[in-house]
Amino acid sequence: MTTPLTTTAAEVLARCAELDRLSADPHHLARLHLTPEHAAANRLAAGWMQQAGLRTWTDAAGNQWGRREGTTPGQPALVLGSHLDTVPDAGSFDGMLGVVMAVAVAERLRGTELPFALEVVGFGDEEGARFGKALLGSQAVAGTWDTSWEDLRDADGVTLRQAFADFGLDPARVGDAARRPDELVGYLEAHIEQGPLLEAADRSLGYVTAIAGARRFRLTVTGEARHAGGTPWERRRDALVGASEAVVAIERLARASDTIATVGRLEVRPGAVNVIPGRADLTLDLRAATDEARDGMWAAMHAEITAICDRRGLGLEVVENHRAPAAACAGWLQQAVVDGIRATDDLGAAEPMGLWSRAGHDAMALAAVTDVGMLFLRCADGISHSPDEDVREVDVARGLDAFEAAVRAVAARWQP
Amino acid sequence: MTTPLTTTAAEVLARCAELDRLSADPHHLARLHLTPEHAAANRLAAGWMQQAGLRTWTDAAGNQWGRREGTTPGQPALVLGSHLDTVPDAGSFDGMLGVVMAVAVAERLRGTELPFALEVVGFGDEEGARFGKALLGSQAVAGTWDTSWEDLRDADGVTLRQAFADFGLDPARVGDAARRPDELVGYLEAHIEQGPLLEAADRSLGYVTAIAGARRFRLTVTGEARHAGGTPWERRRDALVGASEAVVAIERLARASDTIATVGRLEVRPGAVNVIPGRADLTLDLRAATDEARDGMWAAMHAEITAICDRRGLGLEVVENHRAPAAACAGWLQQAVVDGIRATDDLGAAEPMGLWSRAGHDAMALAAVTDVGMLFLRCADGISHSPDEDVREVDVARGLDAFEAAVRAVAARWQP
Repeated sequence: MTTPLTTTAAEVLARCAELDRLSADPHHLARLHLTPEHAAANRLAAGWMQQAGLRTWTDAAGNQWGRREGTTPGQPALVLGSHLDTVPDAGSFDGMLGVVMAVAVAERLRGTELPFALEVVGFGDEEGARFGKALLGSQAVAGTWDTSWEDLRDADGVTLRQAFADFGLDPARVGDAARRPDELVGYLEAHIEQGPLLEAADRSLGYVTAIAGARRFRLTVTGEARHAGGTPWERRRDALVGASEAVVAIERLARASDTIATVGRLEVRPGAVNVIPGRADLTLDLRAATDEARDGMWAAMHAEITAICDRRGLGLEVVENHRAPAAACAGWLQQAVVDGIRATDDLGAAEPMGLWSRAGHDAMALAAVTDVGMLFLRCADGISHSPDEDVREVDVARGLDAFEAAVRAVAARWQP
Repeated sequence: MTTPLTTTAAEVLARCAELDRLSADPHHLARLHLTPEHAAANRLAAGWMQQAGLRTWTDAAGNQWGRREGTTPGQPALVLGSHLDTVPDAGSFDGMLGVVMAVAVAERLRGTELPFALEVVGFGDEEGARFGKALLGSQAVAGTWDTSWEDLRDADGVTLRQAFADFGLDPARVGDAARRPDELVGYLEAHIEQGPLLEAADRSLGYVTAIAGARRFRLTVTGEARHAGGTPWERRRDALVGASEAVVAIERLARASDTIATVGRLEVRPGAVNVIPGRADLTLDLRAATDEARDGMWAAMHAEITAICDRRGLGLEVVENHRAPAAACAGWLQQAVVDGIRATDDLGAAEPMGLWSRAGHDAMALAAVTDVGMLFLRCADGISHSPDEDVREVDVARGLDAFEAAVRAVAARWQP
């Protein structure tokens, strides 16, 4: 039944390396949403999709798609995919590995009759590194697009609206990327774990039970820019010292609980060695296993940061720019991924390992429109969002076997 | 004896406003060392100097000079001046007011026979905003230039050496800007106080007794850039949280003492909302009334920051890029400035007010080669290094009278 293997694990890794070259920076991988690098990555992925026998198109939100019909043209589609954008100074696998593996699985299944169409997608924005708001690509597809996001600006002041136009897309038509539930069978995504649990358990693969809820905020602390020497202590309203107290408090509060909180950006203005900072802008990324834990932690943090700013005579402005509810993977797709993992030689006598994802994924956006399932691959030392991100060829080989077997399991289980 | 007043206080303020337009940013004043704006400011100041009857030149370090001979050509010079560079998002008076007032005083004294040459200087770098190292212009003149500084880089990676070449200067000849002690009578500088003490005492003017010692450092804290979600707390080595603890500790230690400490810049890498910061670079500006207090405070801060980084598994690198000893104003020049203030209508029955400067000034560099004295002018609310920097016309009028009278007092006191 199995068609000849056409794209090996080694070739999957070579394709990830090929994508590495499409970067804004020759020395570090940085491929942000709606940039020329993004367009180049779409073209490269489209070429691979066509080699795998898929018909390709770019949707109204800039996502790259490929499709092969099932037994009957026009059937609902099982979508396999992940994202093609990266954080600045990224590794080679977060997102890209899932897209390249999805293409390889579509290629492996070329001669197989499936009772649904098979689609592969490379989303254009999962990380949110350019506009501060994550999952822009997958939310457009899920039909949860909010046109107010089009006023978001990147670090150069370019609006998302303008970026769509520069990319050759019509900013008024982004919503057209939305898919209807009846067009879809489900969504399966392969991804590196981005954590150390599979490695600690000596497993190549795991299935995902749920994806943690997340919220992201931009906090602006305002004080008064004054001369660093001439201003006595009682007259100083230093935005950076207030922001620094907030960063320390955020860590203390999150650590004492089950949540994860990260301040990834902090910008100080005017930013001169001899001027008291008048303004500090920081981002907060907050994640928890449940929406309740996440929201309770934010309430505690907001109260503490407000108290810090009040005590120091500083202003505080908070803008929430991302909120994703915790998303459960559908039971029947979890089971299909479990079946997929069982079809590999990873296990010995052990049961497949289930784990919940602390990182956000496109699957959590897609859960608004269709059932989702995820396959995790072990990564080296749990490192991600770093050039040191690494994955073993043997794990990719097992992942390809499991991913293909999972699609076959979906075909066996699915009732139109 | 007094020649007709040619440049009024209002005209001095108008010239400061004219300099405001020479900025890298149309919306904020930013005029950094060796930029096209710096060259334009030199040209504008040179024109004013020529109108005041001075012969003008730019020295090997990019400072703008004017000179008029005394009774006999070739006599030593009394130098009046300040600086033409600014911090980013600066006010209109820090530095520029002193240069423009010096030109106006030279103009007032045009018909007066003096037993020394009169020179006016606009230094090209006092703030250190471009290369992180302050007083580059005045240190070249003082003969304390260190050629290793030429490897310093600005935020775009341009070396100081390259910046000199781009400015049309020979980087190998910067040392030629040095003046010999026997060429100089002394250095007098007018400057806004950049603090609230004159305003609190309801005085227009004050004389400076000493300029505080300062040290500046660049601190680099290194951790590990990792995925914000997937990395458990025990695996995180977050450079920003460590740096934030350091910022809070710096404030706590300095506040408990008589020193002033400011972290004016903090840059985080990679700087993405969902990546744990792997590196934070911060600046520290430290000032104290004595070198002993300043150095003792740095030792305490360094120990505390080292302990923070050790506890968090973070790397710490410290580079000192500026050190200026506390500089006393010469007694006889303090007395000349006191005489100058007495010649104004600022005082009623009160004695002139003496104060020590917590801010650094070109005078502290010049103290290495000649005697220095300073005249402080009241500024609004003590605000400086901010667009809100302000000075009253009446204070400038009194300042011009005092500055002119101080030069006459030097002429009466000086023995060649």
